[in-house]
Amino acid sequence: MTTARQLGLWAEGKNSLPSGEHNAITDVPGVRVGHQTLSDGGLATGVTAVIPHAGDLFRQKVRAAVEVINGFGKSVGLVQIAELGTIETPILLTNTFGVAACTEALIRRAIADNPAIGRETSTVNAVVCECNDGTINDIQALAVSPEDAFAALAAAASGRVEQGSVGAGRGMTAFGFKGGIGSASRRMHIADRDFTLGALVLANFGRAGDLVLPDGRRPDPGSVSHSERGSVIVVLATDLPLGDRQLQRVARRAGAGLARLGAFWGHGSGDIVLGFTTADQIAHDAPAFQSMTCIDENLIDLPFRAAVEATQEAVLNALCAAPGETGRTGKHYPSLADWAEENAL
Amino acid sequence: MTTARQLGLWAEGKNSLPSGEHNAITDVPGVRVGHQTLSDGGLATGVTAVIPHAGDLFRQKVRAAVEVINGFGKSVGLVQIAELGTIETPILLTNTFGVAACTEALIRRAIADNPAIGRETSTVNAVVCECNDGTINDIQALAVSPEDAFAALAAAASGRVEQGSVGAGRGMTAFGFKGGIGSASRRMHIADRDFTLGALVLANFGRAGDLVLPDGRRPDPGSVSHSERGSVIVVLATDLPLGDRQLQRVARRAGAGLARLGAFWGHGSGDIVLGFTTADQIAHDAPAFQSMTCIDENLIDLPFRAAVEATQEAVLNALCAAPGETGRTGKHYPSLADWAEENAL
Amino acid sequence: MTTARQLGLWAEGKNSLPSGEHNAITDVPGVRVGHQTLSDGGLATGVTAVIPHAGDLFRQKVRAAVEVINGFGKSVGLVQIAELGTIETPILLTNTFGVAACTEALIRRAIADNPAIGRETSTVNAVVCECNDGTINDIQALAVSPEDAFAALAAAASGRVEQGSVGAGRGMTAFGFKGGIGSASRRMHIADRDFTLGALVLANFGRAGDLVLPDGRRPDPGSVSHSERGSVIVVLATDLPLGDRQLQRVARRAGAGLARLGAFWGHGSGDIVLGFTTADQIAHDAPAFQSMTCIDENLIDLPFRAAVEATQEAVLNALCAAPGETGRTGKHYPSLADWAEENAL
Amino acid sequence: MTTARQLGLWAEGKNSLPSGEHNAITDVPGVRVGHQTLSDGGLATGVTAVIPHAGDLFRQKVRAAVEVINGFGKSVGLVQIAELGTIETPILLTNTFGVAACTEALIRRAIADNPAIGRETSTVNAVVCECNDGTINDIQALAVSPEDAFAALAAAASGRVEQGSVGAGRGMTAFGFKGGIGSASRRMHIADRDFTLGALVLANFGRAGDLVLPDGRRPDPGSVSHSERGSVIVVLATDLPLGDRQLQRVARRAGAGLARLGAFWGHGSGDIVLGFTTADQIAHDAPAFQSMTCIDENLIDLPFRAAVEATQEAVLNALCAAPGETGRTGKHYPSLADWAEENAL
Repeated sequence: MTTARQLGLWAEGKNSLPSGEHNAITDVPGVRVGHQTLSDGGLATGVTAVIPHAGDLFRQKVRAAVEVINGFGKSVGLVQIAELGTIETPILLTNTFGVAACTEALIRRAIADNPAIGRETSTVNAVVCECNDGTINDIQALAVSPEDAFAALAAAASGRVEQGSVGAGRGMTAFGFKGGIGSASRRMHIADRDFTLGALVLANFGRAGDLVLPDGRRPDPGSVSHSERGSVIVVLATDLPLGDRQLQRVARRAGAGLARLGAFWGHGSGDIVLGFTTADQIAHDAPAFQSMTCIDENLIDLPFRAAVEATQEAVLNALCAAPGETGRTGKHYPSLADWAEENAL
Repeated sequence: MTTARQLGLWAEGKNSLPSGEHNAITDVPGVRVGHQTLSDGGLATGVTAVIPHAGDLFRQKVRAAVEVINGFGKSVGLVQIAELGTIETPILLTNTFGVAACTEALIRRAIADNPAIGRETSTVNAVVCECNDGTINDIQALAVSPEDAFAALAAAASGRVEQGSVGAGRGMTAFGFKGGIGSASRRMHIADRDFTLGALVLANFGRAGDLVLPDGRRPDPGSVSHSERGSVIVVLATDLPLGDRQLQRVARRAGAGLARLGAFWGHGSGDIVLGFTTADQIAHDAPAFQSMTCIDENLIDLPFRAAVEATQEAVLNALCAAPGETGRTGKHYPSLADWAEENAL
Repeated sequence: MTTARQLGLWAEGKNSLPSGEHNAITDVPGVRVGHQTLSDGGLATGVTAVIPHAGDLFRQKVRAAVEVINGFGKSVGLVQIAELGTIETPILLTNTFGVAACTEALIRRAIADNPAIGRETSTVNAVVCECNDGTINDIQALAVSPEDAFAALAAAASGRVEQGSVGAGRGMTAFGFKGGIGSASRRMHIADRDFTLGALVLANFGRAGDLVLPDGRRPDPGSVSHSERGSVIVVLATDLPLGDRQLQRVARRAGAGLARLGAFWGHGSGDIVLGFTTADQIAHDAPAFQSMTCIDENLIDLPFRAAVEATQEAVLNALCAAPGETGRTGKHYPSLADWAEENAL
Repeated sequence: MTTARQLGLWAEGKNSLPSGEHNAITDVPGVRVGHQTLSDGGLATGVTAVIPHAGDLFRQKVRAAVEVINGFGKSVGLVQIAELGTIETPILLTNTFGVAACTEALIRRAIADNPAIGRETSTVNAVVCECNDGTINDIQALAVSPEDAFAALAAAASGRVEQGSVGAGRGMTAFGFKGGIGSASRRMHIADRDFTLGALVLANFGRAGDLVLPDGRRPDPGSVSHSERGSVIVVLATDLPLGDRQLQRVARRAGAGLARLGAFWGHGSGDIVLGFTTADQIAHDAPAFQSMTCIDENLIDLPFRAAVEATQEAVLNALCAAPGETGRTGKHYPSLADWAEENAL
């Protein structure tokens, strides 16, 4: 797997933050990622799972926020996250028409673990985000099944994150290049403590000719620019304690990361950000009063910057890791890695 | 079917508006409603379809707005409506765990009618709203299938709307009474033209003892008040031309209709409003410029008032039409119609 | 000063909460209210100050939320409250064209207390809300001066709150009756501790004929109904610990209190809610990490209910305390107290 | 006045749009800009007026939208724009503590032109946006008076726009450089018609070392990076017909333009966008029904792109036009023009 840094496509600024050990969302302690990839007979799709912690998420929810940069999308579960500020299932990413199957899987899994759901206690809010991989994948086949979702969840692991044309990223394209799953992370030092913020993106957005690298170069995939039917999902994870409103502010900054790449949050692109912190988890059966730790708002520029940088680099990593591929209608989506080698400085 | 007016539970104010012919959402020309009810072996659930017009909704979208009064809910498709201001499938109502099946049905139906979906053109945004009917229905059975959704769609008709314990309303409860589907409408006279605004509600909200009738009486179902795990979905339809922002403002007023009933938009209640106008429909393949008719903002109090009154009366109609029923754990949910007869003035 | 309870206009429901000692916003420990009333030569206006605590608000901010029910209004400072979740000046209420003078007063006062403002530290966000009292007051006179704002601030006191045609309420009308300043409070018992939520309203909204009393009666002021150019400001204070998002949810419920009175949040009415908690104040120079106490979200129905009831009763109190008055164009706005006595049950 | 293009700091992308005649907001027909600059005795501040059309704005309002990118700001009038979608006064830009004086000026001017305001008709919503120029200007002097606002309005003209350290831009800084007023425009060709979108910015944001030029270079002002207390106001004008929701979507894209410059919408920066279209103006006394022209949503990427590019270039123009200056505490803010000449490629 090739990364943007290996190819010399990442450039530090004066105020840039250092990346974490794996430069991935899994640098946030406890966060795991798993893929299930479907790849034959016209299928090029899959499911990617992000699991915030090792416990039962329904019983031990994570504080979360959602930012809809551009709402041309069919993601599920966002309304409740916005209202309650919690995520209570793993986060699944898939193709647009795989959302129903993944939702069913998350509900069945939660009920299996918590038989009181929908009976003695509330129902459960499944979180499934999507992009349209129809340029490469036969999306009308509705190929993703609940079993694929279970497989992605079962595969979830910490450490190095497989990126590019894997899981939900299998059939995605971005800026005229082959897209997919990418990840990156940033470390923050606050009051003698170390924290990490990680991003995982499902990159399927951006018109050919619009991509801008950190050094100002504009890689041209050589294809005719067309209107977007893409999308991008950004999952931000951190172990930094952030209040609800603070987490929302951090999530919003992922949009700046996308814009730095040349995106303008195109009309046809469902650009959605989910942010969560593993600090101060919320028990399903909580005490009457509970303490939440916030950072001094005057320090919040640090996670803002981390969110922007990690999002920007995660997208570049997605494009560098994915090999070139030809779509259903014969159009070729080259790899940014190939472009980088041909255009080495 | 008994209505609130028949039972003397509706009271006109000085500025009240007249109702339409059927006092139902179907008074808006072209709007149809259909139910599929599941009722055996512990099941008490179903699907209700609201179809905005007789044409192909994907090709001829209706202008729409969404208002999240309280977002403890799992409805699908809201994010895109908020961004694009259109609905492009029928609206399905069902129980919380029936959302995935209904979503799949709407996608399959749209693809069958428009094979270009997800291939030559964009994907389709299914709209499915839900309430938790777990106090009466065995929601863990995940009993609703895509076929049930198809049946509700096939049953859609204009004219009189069946209300109470039908379709998605089969297992719902409200204010300690049996709830379900209700509807009402209001006529508006503007600049020598007549318009209608209709509401259809899936009423499953409100604590026992909180219900307030228009005449100030507070019907007590006789049961112990418990915390809410309900929800209410309000669908508002009109043929009045309204711009996007105007439609949003009108949708918001449904919340006032609920509050007049004694609701305070409880924590556990997913209170969602969908509003659409059949005026100025938007073609999927539209010309570069298109005209939208707005009303003078100084006249908008009229549809505001219509939305409040129709929502309020639709809920009362749901409670009057639904017969009493005993829940899964033995608790009884009486009919408001029975209360009204016992407490006749 | 006459109250709604004294006139028999308040009705308890099964789940109603008890009021505090003064049934006023000042039942929240530390909260003070002051008025400056202008009443001669065609002037009938003023300033009302709500001061959250006795300390320096710039140095010790209170957690706050804003809910815009209907944004036809010219209030100042709301955008920053929404972003940062804090209030750092007293809250001033006045007429629409008095906002600039009150803003200047708050800025000058903050600078006098904190000379570092705008130099060594950030600027200050003045919070001023307004209603249009032009039916009684000659609003074009721009009569409110910074000195009036200082006078209202200096007059602020705890204990009993003067209500009706005082301070900013001097020239306000509501539902065709004379309106003005009203207040009410509710006590909440949570986990063996007692908390209070109080409301103070500047009531200047609602069409003649729309008012509904808790017992279902609809007081008619006898005047012809006209379209609204009013507004209502609701200030909610509590000592209950609430997170940012929770406080926002509580503030939103004030809209239900208004709706229960027959309001439908009319087009021309700027309906704005400010909510703050005196718990967990935020220091201007804060430590890197700070603890915020939240309540278990499953208990939040209690402050929801308190917000609805206190808002509803505060408006009735405003209308009961204000004597009848004739407007600039000769139209009479009777007192609801007079109506109540003529229509005693 | 030097521009970014003259200094070689602008780089076209493959899909870039052409600029208008003056590369300024005044390329939108009818839009005028005027400055009043205050510059002696420690003062370095002023007022800038943007006037959407030559008529009476109260009687002939322009359709408008507001986007709050980051709400750490004290702008006035935004809440009503968000609700009603119109602007009915000129837009004034000034320093944070000049807002009250400018508000008063706009109210007095509107009343002078329309004596019915606040009497026979509604009040008026003044629109004033601000940034904190306290690093260079003695903001505590509260030097801006209503007369300064009148002077800026009287100076408004079409054609070439004076940029840099003029009007409200007099004391602003950005990215460690001297900031101020900047402008740019883009032309769009849709369905055989030509339209223009123009941006005017008050640039006072961004940390030293964060600025990224379109060619990837990162100009370093040589000063130590400090936390932001800045802000940026973006005014977008167009003659393209856009519906309310569409205009909102376009306004949002200004945030992407800022992000491309290296900004991450810092905590202390009030980043506010006002967008308006001169098409389909709304009469104060409107007919019952009115037609609004929208563009096919599938074409909206064109104004999205125009908004991003014009915002980005307008900021660069501000920094290129402003000469270097030393702040109140002795810190120097160089001109980007000087940097560009020293670092010519």
